Amino acid sequence: MARIVQKYGGTSVGSAQRIEHVAARIEKAVAHGNELVVVVSAMGKSTDVLVDLAKQMTESPSKREMDMLLSTGEQVTISLLAMALHKRGIEAISFTGWQAGIKTEESHGNARISDIQTDRMEAELGNGKVVIVAGFQGVTQSGEITTLGRGGSDTTAVALAAALKASRCEIYTDVTGVFTTDPRFVKQARKLHSISYDEMLEMANLGAGVLHPRAVEFAKNYEIPLMVASSMVDEPGTMIEEEVTMEQNLVVRGIAFENDVTKITVAGLPNKIDALSTLFSTLSKNQINVDIIIQNQSDDKHVDISFSITQSSLKETIAILEEAKSELEFSSIHYEEDLAKVSIIGSGMVSNPGVAANMFNVLAENDIFIKMVSTSEIKVSVVVKEEDMVLAVEMLHQAFQLAEEEAAVV
Amino acid sequence: MARIVQKYGGTSVGSAQRIEHVAARIEKAVAHGNELVVVVSAMGKSTDVLVDLAKQMTESPSKREMDMLLSTGEQVTISLLAMALHKRGIEAISFTGWQAGIKTEESHGNARISDIQTDRMEAELGNGKVVIVAGFQGVTQSGEITTLGRGGSDTTAVALAAALKASRCEIYTDVTGVFTTDPRFVKQARKLHSISYDEMLEMANLGAGVLHPRAVEFAKNYEIPLMVASSMVDEPGTMIEEEVTMEQNLVVRGIAFENDVTKITVAGLPNKIDALSTLFSTLSKNQINVDIIIQNQSDDKHVDISFSITQSSLKETIAILEEAKSELEFSSIHYEEDLAKVSIIGSGMVSNPGVAANMFNVLAENDIFIKMVSTSEIKVSVVVKEEDMVLAVEMLHQAFQLAEEEAAVV
Repeated sequence: MARIVQKYGGTSVGSAQRIEHVAARIEKAVAHGNELVVVVSAMGKSTDVLVDLAKQMTESPSKREMDMLLSTGEQVTISLLAMALHKRGIEAISFTGWQAGIKTEESHGNARISDIQTDRMEAELGNGKVVIVAGFQGVTQSGEITTLGRGGSDTTAVALAAALKASRCEIYTDVTGVFTTDPRFVKQARKLHSISYDEMLEMANLGAGVLHPRAVEFAKNYEIPLMVASSMVDEPGTMIEEEVTMEQNLVVRGIAFENDVTKITVAGLPNKIDALSTLFSTLSKNQINVDIIIQNQSDDKHVDISFSITQSSLKETIAILEEAKSELEFSSIHYEEDLAKVSIIGSGMVSNPGVAANMFNVLAENDIFIKMVSTSEIKVSVVVKEEDMVLAVEMLHQAFQLAEEEAAVV
Repeated sequence: MARIVQKYGGTSVGSAQRIEHVAARIEKAVAHGNELVVVVSAMGKSTDVLVDLAKQMTESPSKREMDMLLSTGEQVTISLLAMALHKRGIEAISFTGWQAGIKTEESHGNARISDIQTDRMEAELGNGKVVIVAGFQGVTQSGEITTLGRGGSDTTAVALAAALKASRCEIYTDVTGVFTTDPRFVKQARKLHSISYDEMLEMANLGAGVLHPRAVEFAKNYEIPLMVASSMVDEPGTMIEEEVTMEQNLVVRGIAFENDVTKITVAGLPNKIDALSTLFSTLSKNQINVDIIIQNQSDDKHVDISFSITQSSLKETIAILEEAKSELEFSSIHYEEDLAKVSIIGSGMVSNPGVAANMFNVLAENDIFIKMVSTSEIKVSVVVKEEDMVLAVEMLHQAFQLAEEEAAVV
């Protein structure tokens, strides 16, 4: 008998029929003798409906009242799932975030979990019940309802798994697992049997979009084995865990990519010790998210700084920089739109110095011009023209033999 | 400066526009320097939508999970109303039932309020905020979400008014007040300036449907002046309070009526001490609601018992009685359908012995045959043919001068 935390996302509980289907899966897991805690999101588009209602009231709703509003979405799902389980003769009880003892910091819209008081859940697990918990929400010390922000339900599930000392956390979603790259763009994409936390973090941050990075970080810190699988079909998913014994020799494990990248170059900044910090403090104060940063010294007295942002923040970024021109003392701004970022990811890179060079070769052979480069221990990212993105991914996928069965690569 | 509890029902908060409108009314009350606590119901038909969802899961959802589900309805409204007030620059904060400290007994679906811990509300009122509370819901000692059953939001409002020592409780609904009789049937119906708690209780129980009896009882016990008025139009409503000085000489204050009444006669029951108790225990065990009861002795050894029920429970009632025939030992059952109940109500009746006779005269003059009679200290009810109902009400309304301005009657 194992204690398992399962999480079902919004699409998986998007209708009465789908909730039925989830209940059937839970019934199966219970029949195998497992102790089950189930975390669910709001049904399908119900969060959008609530957000729309709020927008009808005011353009800038208070974060506290948004949390009050949005937290009802998961509360609806937990009660419906409990009913579906009861109908199958399975003992189950639903808990809101506050009932499950999920304490968060005093902050709305994007609160972090500070503590989980498990007594009530432990008591009901002890009574042989399936415990159903509303994802995405918690309560502060002073009794305020909070939400955990994007990917919050994933975080709830992993945090519960840690607090309840579960043997693993299973995230059921609308994809069947983690792929070597996005199968919607690259036909050769292959589902991975397993991947390490760090690799998954790089995949998630780079837009693979399967699991929220916060949840992966949490799982890594508490060493919770995570499984990502489909709630629709019955096939093994991808395990995310520390030891990836079977596949450790595979240098590159996946390729992530995203378009909508814009490169901005601020030229002729004075070569002062605080040039970078002044520039990026100005941007971060204005909530501009910067990704890759490159600094070039143009002459003794001046530096050029390039960085990438999303297309949508271009206009605002230019306006902010122009306004701060007298303070920053740069000479000019240039920008290039319609770019994309392509990244190769793999823990094996650390001990394989030739990987980046190999990547650059593949791109050069295919006449793909590299605009920016950024590297970490387990990742190399390049910025290329958006029109070259899919070709770059396909060529890299092939070059690093990602389509081949893993056993063959060992 | 007065402390006022206002309550807005489902129709009054049925859309974003209507919530805007409610916010405007609250703004006005705040501008007059009042301290405001506002109780709201779920938006329009949203409770029906939730009930439908539950029915899709199972035919007999657990009461605990229904409470979990339904309590989200009011939670949506409180957050939206808070946003609408914020937009108008009014400081406001929303509270669920558990956040407002509304404690109930450990029972689901129809829980009674056991205590209200007002600290949090008092603190926010002290901060100059409008406090918005979700109606219809509370929390048990063990942290279970409960709902208060039908008319629950009215009860929440009155209970808060009592706990917070408010100067009055204003119930805003889709009618403009309490009328001498139902204006949809009788054109001469007139809105009452004021009415006593007991009169209102009789009106409510008899189908006037404006306020839930539980709320009126609560208001009576704690001597909370209640006002019923429309949330849509700006005109004075009806005050419900102990002292009705202006109108105390008016003998009959209102006429209530309802159709769908069926009279059942159980004939030839043995004349035993427990004849009545056995019969009605059998019915109540089967959830049959009986209204008027009349006992007639037919001979030394036998009694006939007549009682009224709703049309919809006729079939089941007959079946239950037939099944219990050997135990009850009656000789036959008769029933008469398509009847209606008409009641005159007024505190002044106690000291006016001729009122019932007057009523019977009016009906006789209009060839209306009386099938059953039942009296209380402040009410006389008769059962008549359904086709005579409206005529009976109109004639009584005229005879007791209810259409005339109250001052003229003093």
